Amino acid sequence: MSKTQVAMIGLGMMGAGMAGRLIDAGFDVAVYNRSPGAADALVARGARRAASPADAVTPGGIAVTMLANDAAVEQITCGEHGVLDTLGEGGVHVSMSTISPALAAALAERHAAAGSTYLGAPVFGRPEAAASGKLWIALAGAAEAKARVQPVLACLSQGVFDLGEAPPLANVAKISGNFLIAAAIEGMAEAFSLVAKNGGDPQAFYALISQTLFACPIYQNYGRQVLARAFSPPGFKLELGAKDIGLVLANGRETHTPLPFASLLNDRYQAGLAKGRADLDWMAIALDVAADAGLPQPA
Amino acid sequence: MSKTQVAMIGLGMMGAGMAGRLIDAGFDVAVYNRSPGAADALVARGARRAASPADAVTPGGIAVTMLANDAAVEQITCGEHGVLDTLGEGGVHVSMSTISPALAAALAERHAAAGSTYLGAPVFGRPEAAASGKLWIALAGAAEAKARVQPVLACLSQGVFDLGEAPPLANVAKISGNFLIAAAIEGMAEAFSLVAKNGGDPQAFYALISQTLFACPIYQNYGRQVLARAFSPPGFKLELGAKDIGLVLANGRETHTPLPFASLLNDRYQAGLAKGRADLDWMAIALDVAADAGLPQPA
Amino acid sequence: MSKTQVAMIGLGMMGAGMAGRLIDAGFDVAVYNRSPGAADALVARGARRAASPADAVTPGGIAVTMLANDAAVEQITCGEHGVLDTLGEGGVHVSMSTISPALAAALAERHAAAGSTYLGAPVFGRPEAAASGKLWIALAGAAEAKARVQPVLACLSQGVFDLGEAPPLANVAKISGNFLIAAAIEGMAEAFSLVAKNGGDPQAFYALISQTLFACPIYQNYGRQVLARAFSPPGFKLELGAKDIGLVLANGRETHTPLPFASLLNDRYQAGLAKGRADLDWMAIALDVAADAGLPQPA
Amino acid sequence: MSKTQVAMIGLGMMGAGMAGRLIDAGFDVAVYNRSPGAADALVARGARRAASPADAVTPGGIAVTMLANDAAVEQITCGEHGVLDTLGEGGVHVSMSTISPALAAALAERHAAAGSTYLGAPVFGRPEAAASGKLWIALAGAAEAKARVQPVLACLSQGVFDLGEAPPLANVAKISGNFLIAAAIEGMAEAFSLVAKNGGDPQAFYALISQTLFACPIYQNYGRQVLARAFSPPGFKLELGAKDIGLVLANGRETHTPLPFASLLNDRYQAGLAKGRADLDWMAIALDVAADAGLPQPA
Repeated sequence: MSKTQVAMIGLGMMGAGMAGRLIDAGFDVAVYNRSPGAADALVARGARRAASPADAVTPGGIAVTMLANDAAVEQITCGEHGVLDTLGEGGVHVSMSTISPALAAALAERHAAAGSTYLGAPVFGRPEAAASGKLWIALAGAAEAKARVQPVLACLSQGVFDLGEAPPLANVAKISGNFLIAAAIEGMAEAFSLVAKNGGDPQAFYALISQTLFACPIYQNYGRQVLARAFSPPGFKLELGAKDIGLVLANGRETHTPLPFASLLNDRYQAGLAKGRADLDWMAIALDVAADAGLPQPA
Repeated sequence: MSKTQVAMIGLGMMGAGMAGRLIDAGFDVAVYNRSPGAADALVARGARRAASPADAVTPGGIAVTMLANDAAVEQITCGEHGVLDTLGEGGVHVSMSTISPALAAALAERHAAAGSTYLGAPVFGRPEAAASGKLWIALAGAAEAKARVQPVLACLSQGVFDLGEAPPLANVAKISGNFLIAAAIEGMAEAFSLVAKNGGDPQAFYALISQTLFACPIYQNYGRQVLARAFSPPGFKLELGAKDIGLVLANGRETHTPLPFASLLNDRYQAGLAKGRADLDWMAIALDVAADAGLPQPA
Repeated sequence: MSKTQVAMIGLGMMGAGMAGRLIDAGFDVAVYNRSPGAADALVARGARRAASPADAVTPGGIAVTMLANDAAVEQITCGEHGVLDTLGEGGVHVSMSTISPALAAALAERHAAAGSTYLGAPVFGRPEAAASGKLWIALAGAAEAKARVQPVLACLSQGVFDLGEAPPLANVAKISGNFLIAAAIEGMAEAFSLVAKNGGDPQAFYALISQTLFACPIYQNYGRQVLARAFSPPGFKLELGAKDIGLVLANGRETHTPLPFASLLNDRYQAGLAKGRADLDWMAIALDVAADAGLPQPA
Repeated sequence: MSKTQVAMIGLGMMGAGMAGRLIDAGFDVAVYNRSPGAADALVARGARRAASPADAVTPGGIAVTMLANDAAVEQITCGEHGVLDTLGEGGVHVSMSTISPALAAALAERHAAAGSTYLGAPVFGRPEAAASGKLWIALAGAAEAKARVQPVLACLSQGVFDLGEAPPLANVAKISGNFLIAAAIEGMAEAFSLVAKNGGDPQAFYALISQTLFACPIYQNYGRQVLARAFSPPGFKLELGAKDIGLVLANGRETHTPLPFASLLNDRYQAGLAKGRADLDWMAIALDVAADAGLPQPA
């Protein structure tokens, strides 16, 4: 039986690890990246180098994209020599980037018109998780296509969560998840400030919450880094956090959903950008929480 | 070797379970409650019935209080026939109620003047946890006293966290922890609304977050109940949640700590009280999150 | 000396009154509206009926537009048979609609490329003010063009305020002004609720503030209508208020300006839309201020 | 006909001017201040120097108090040699300080028990207005007493507004008025920041709003000073603004009134205190609005 072909488009820190994982698992992988050097190591491991997104894709096959933002996904999909040029009848586009629900809806329509199927499949997890198959995937789209790509997603993740039939629902889940993370950062930062202003040790408070009520990755990992003020190098840039909270509020306006915590976070992130912190980690909103309380800032 | 004597004052849903636990563990327990009937079952199990707080306390012994609010703790401690009347030199008052840091500071001074020691020791956990020794305890106060009461706290809890030497720090940790819980409720309620307004299933989003990033008791238990709109009977009343957020903001004003998330929660809780929801669970602030988004309300 | 020619494009409640005012003042007015009936009365008063925006405009002349939103202004200006088709070298486009600063910047570039000049000139005032020459105008753009259109603006307004050389600055001023109005509505609504919840008479409080510290049109007129709950028919629709606050926040994101009051107002307006109040007056956000305080709602 | 006797208690910047005004108008004035030097100039102008509040007051007469805060008013009224010692049957206490509605209610009860009448009569206006009879007075209490003190209030003010029969209603009006002023400061500061971040001139925007929609003292005077960053010496200290917003929120909690704008202002004022700005003018919250937007701070 021949191997399943997969086009992997977008070979950044996330995509490169995912491509390597697929190669190791025995998929027949074609790779494409806008800046070509990123493909070299993967070609050395057995991937086919594609000259364009269209060239990476097999008609009726599976295309996986992992790109930076709405503009990149739209260009790779609908632009010249894009995914839509080749994928055609029966093909499935597994779109794993964090993009707006609105773009997901538009791309799903474009695919439907071309006879192919668009799946929303954004992920939670850092590059290490991508390279080791430990991502969490939010999945939405047509049932048949979801079943077909199951082996690919199983190779990349430790869990797939089905959000429904409409592809944008996966993106709503992804940006809502990022909103909850940002809210946890702000909440912890406020609590740490309050403890500090009372003369207490925020580290002791962190130990309490992170081992009991909030014994879960976000509070444990983010709480530790907020306390250490470990904001550079960034795990996830503040400007990307600002973008994602912007997507949440944009979706809130489209659906008429008031989101007071998200609104407050948007102001925090705009302040961070205004103060030149775009390239710090998105946890760096904690700097302003502390500064507003008159607490000393890191050098 | 004689058994350690412990006075257990306050036999509500929390205190009664704690007293029973101490009796079963072999402590020599004296019990007192303002409404006397609450002591009957415990006396049947071997406790000594005390006529007043002062009567429950052994000079130089250990007094544990678990009461409803600042006023009750102040009255039981400093009022006529209060704890301070008897405890005296070498005694330790383990104060486990959720009270203001300001009152904790005042009581610590009163004890110091009387030669006794005040420990802040508020707890996280529901009545079931109190009865089964599964509380989490935030502890602060003098090291020697903390060491002495260790066997008592070990009997009542699955973990003790040391917040420092100043007793109010334990109370700051307790109210800050409740603030983080309320913030998690609001955050989840906003995210659930956003998913619902997009036509998605909040239950599927809950499955995603509660099994991955936020796989911890607060998100799992509170998230499930927010989705089920299980707000009555209450596990913890909305009016008590409103009180605790009020304590957070009061402490913020005393220490000049801006707390925007807590401020927003205060407005949510005041709206809940204004709408007659004092006796619902404190998760019921989610009702207004949904109502503001135009989502249908429970019958 | 021949009369100055003016093209008046957009004959809604605002534009029709402005066109009539220009006719009465002796300008040579050509009128255009997408739905043609709106021009009849003005043609009867002496205006020339134009078949398109391009037909209304005289090469090198003055074009005034007063339209509903960004899309309409862009279409009338850049679309087929648009203003840009005819205006050409030396012409001036006086753009009086409330649009985004971003579109104003884009249109200014398009005009510059065509040799014509774009002026941002949005207005404050209701239809009665438009018909009686009592508007207030926020003006921005090249000095020479501003001088040339001065007689036209003088005819339409009781005051022109110069915001600078860059056309979008007039739009920034307009949306910032609307933001301040919305903030005054929210502030008064909160204060009225507080007075009412204390058992007082908000009308007496309104008398105090509107005759002393806040003796100005916004507090006097809006305060009176908020108290009377006179939200229908609308003077300015809630959906338009929501749009303008959206423009403020969008500009805040583009310029990295945190705007906490505007963020809170955005949530109020989204709640209003979610509750089906798009066609009420934009003061109707006061309904939720009162409802959150448990105050009775109008029938 | 003999002159009306008035006891004027509290001779700070406000009270001294008021006493002088009453002397000039021909009232028979007794003066008292805790630090005695403040009375000298007034005694030179004909006032009687009193040794205590009780000594200043004539039985059955009129006592006016103008003091710094709740504690001072309570002490002067109920303390040893206080107003209540002498005032007695038929006397009227005109309480003009900015205090909490809760204290006003308590003092009204104390007076009723003593046969005297308490009137809430807080004022709007700076020391210059106090000295020239140009205050605005918010008045609440029993009708007969209000009628009796009318000549005194007329001498001190350019307008008296009747808020009702319950004395605390005047205090609710006063703190709600201060809340509206603080909200106007924040609103203007946000709008000025937005204009500046767009490259515009906030002064031009100020000219527009302060001459049109918001042509009233607060926007004109405060707007000018915010732009000039004229925060020292203070006209009204930031710590007093923080106190008043605290009174607003405390009243909101007592009456279950959500007040999101006031909550946000409370955080602004706490940040101001945390940053050591207690002695700047209360407009100095604008510093953080600008700083959050990355705008340069004054030297």
